[in-house]
Amino acid sequence: MSDSAPWITFRPELQVLDCTIRDGGLINNHLFTDEVVRAVYDTCVEAGIDAMEVGYKNSPKLFPKGDYGPWRHCDEADLNRLFPDHDAEKTGLKLCAMADAEKSDFREQIVPCEESVLDVIRVAFYAHQLSDAIEMINYCDSLGYETFANLMAVSNITEVEIDAVLEGIAQTPAGTMVIVDSFGYLYREQVDRLYKKYANAMAGTGKEIGIHAHNNQQLAFANTIEAIILGANRADATMAGLGRGAGNCPMELLLGFLRNPKFHLRPIIKLLQDYILPLQASVDWGPSVPYNITGQLNLHPRAAMECRASEQRDDLIAFYDKIVSDI
Amino acid sequence: MSDSAPWITFRPELQVLDCTIRDGGLINNHLFTDEVVRAVYDTCVEAGIDAMEVGYKNSPKLFPKGDYGPWRHCDEADLNRLFPDHDAEKTGLKLCAMADAEKSDFREQIVPCEESVLDVIRVAFYAHQLSDAIEMINYCDSLGYETFANLMAVSNITEVEIDAVLEGIAQTPAGTMVIVDSFGYLYREQVDRLYKKYANAMAGTGKEIGIHAHNNQQLAFANTIEAIILGANRADATMAGLGRGAGNCPMELLLGFLRNPKFHLRPIIKLLQDYILPLQASVDWGPSVPYNITGQLNLHPRAAMECRASEQRDDLIAFYDKIVSDI
Repeated sequence: MSDSAPWITFRPELQVLDCTIRDGGLINNHLFTDEVVRAVYDTCVEAGIDAMEVGYKNSPKLFPKGDYGPWRHCDEADLNRLFPDHDAEKTGLKLCAMADAEKSDFREQIVPCEESVLDVIRVAFYAHQLSDAIEMINYCDSLGYETFANLMAVSNITEVEIDAVLEGIAQTPAGTMVIVDSFGYLYREQVDRLYKKYANAMAGTGKEIGIHAHNNQQLAFANTIEAIILGANRADATMAGLGRGAGNCPMELLLGFLRNPKFHLRPIIKLLQDYILPLQASVDWGPSVPYNITGQLNLHPRAAMECRASEQRDDLIAFYDKIVSDI
Repeated sequence: MSDSAPWITFRPELQVLDCTIRDGGLINNHLFTDEVVRAVYDTCVEAGIDAMEVGYKNSPKLFPKGDYGPWRHCDEADLNRLFPDHDAEKTGLKLCAMADAEKSDFREQIVPCEESVLDVIRVAFYAHQLSDAIEMINYCDSLGYETFANLMAVSNITEVEIDAVLEGIAQTPAGTMVIVDSFGYLYREQVDRLYKKYANAMAGTGKEIGIHAHNNQQLAFANTIEAIILGANRADATMAGLGRGAGNCPMELLLGFLRNPKFHLRPIIKLLQDYILPLQASVDWGPSVPYNITGQLNLHPRAAMECRASEQRDDLIAFYDKIVSDI
């Protein structure tokens, strides 16, 4: 990478993970058509993206099959139906699923890697679920998967809790520790501080640092760039920023920033036109004012999502007054 | 400002300028109702904002009065009609107009400061118009105005041109030199480099550095924060990001970041609800895919604006192919 104009050079080890369907499915209970899911997969291959997270390995007991689409559970039968031809070595695209601590029947739902089209399992957890997460990471590793540790809602816990989590994860076989700004709250200086903390804690373990940003304050792309500049080699993005609430770092922006010639923007633009932007007719995402407000206040976007879904969605001042008086 | 957690402290010398009507008027030929313009003014006062740029002092010969609203010219009669009670000392809000080099009949249009409600004139210019700009700055200063120098489209000129401009402006009475990312092209590392260049060139002159960012890549807010962190004490923003093309740094996000207790977010939220977001029915702004593309390629947003205004606005791939084949 050039020192004089780093923005026109690249780090070959930087990998991009698409989590459009996984994170976007939190808006529509993962009720995507097969056609959309497969279009995202084919686009990822064409665009040179390194991994696609297709959904959750979460429990059908908690998320009943009638109410939730197949990508909340990622049953092997569904994976085999939609990706019978998957071959990460041939395409360069790894297939990934996320398992939430305490929401996944992981011992039943996750089969040995060699029997699955999945290549990667990402374990998502809150700080208090550290021990569950370590068990899940160890289990998935023993089945042959590459694993990620995604500590959620990092802006809402204390320094010593973060330190304890990092110390615990450093000893696991997880390949990547991800900075997750669940509430879209972090400003640049906070991303810097977290990156340094995560990188120091993982020093010598060979683990990569990842970044998963939310767009409540229109900072998802900027914070993703920031982590990349500092050295993060795993970056999450979604097509058109599709994702819960204010959404995620938009892939079409991230690929414009990355200068590795293996990445191609045109297939993404085509996917946006054909499949993703038409979803705006039925699902709501992106950084509107209610999300700006919850993001600024380091709050879960739940209230903003309820506001956007209600008939009072345009009564911004009522929303603001309620949020401010509630904290 | 605290070193350990600067994001919860503030620099008292940081001033915010609202340019909603000036920049937003580039979308609708400044055909705003008086009611909207006055609402923005009243909101700025209530929110603790330091300056409001109400429009251009540009020539009615180039911008005929029938085709353009009063805020393209900022005639003293219009200013006196809408702001008869203006008193910067009492409210803390300075009134400002922009004059474009070679587009303003500044010797006729700008009257002595003591005869005008205006407090500040910002001179906008391209690098090749440096000599005009210096003349305008000197003239406005001699009339008693605080002046700004806004070098536009900085991403599109050479290093030596930037240096020559900075050298020229350093010798003028301009109080502020503004980094202007007209095309919404700059990434964080580029903002850093420009900030350092501008600050070095102005060292010892007492001039402040300003930032005026555009949102083509959803980086207007992030780049504004970045310049502020580095030391910029003059920041531009607009209500809901209203502004030409992809728009500007949204005021509602910037005020959430600033911790000076003199700033108040609630009046902004109310203005958005009552006046600004309803404009979306008639004018188009914000960082959509065509602006993402021109921003990434360091192009004027003209083509993206035409795309968004055309019947082919959803044919993103046709737009992408045309832009890429044209460069």
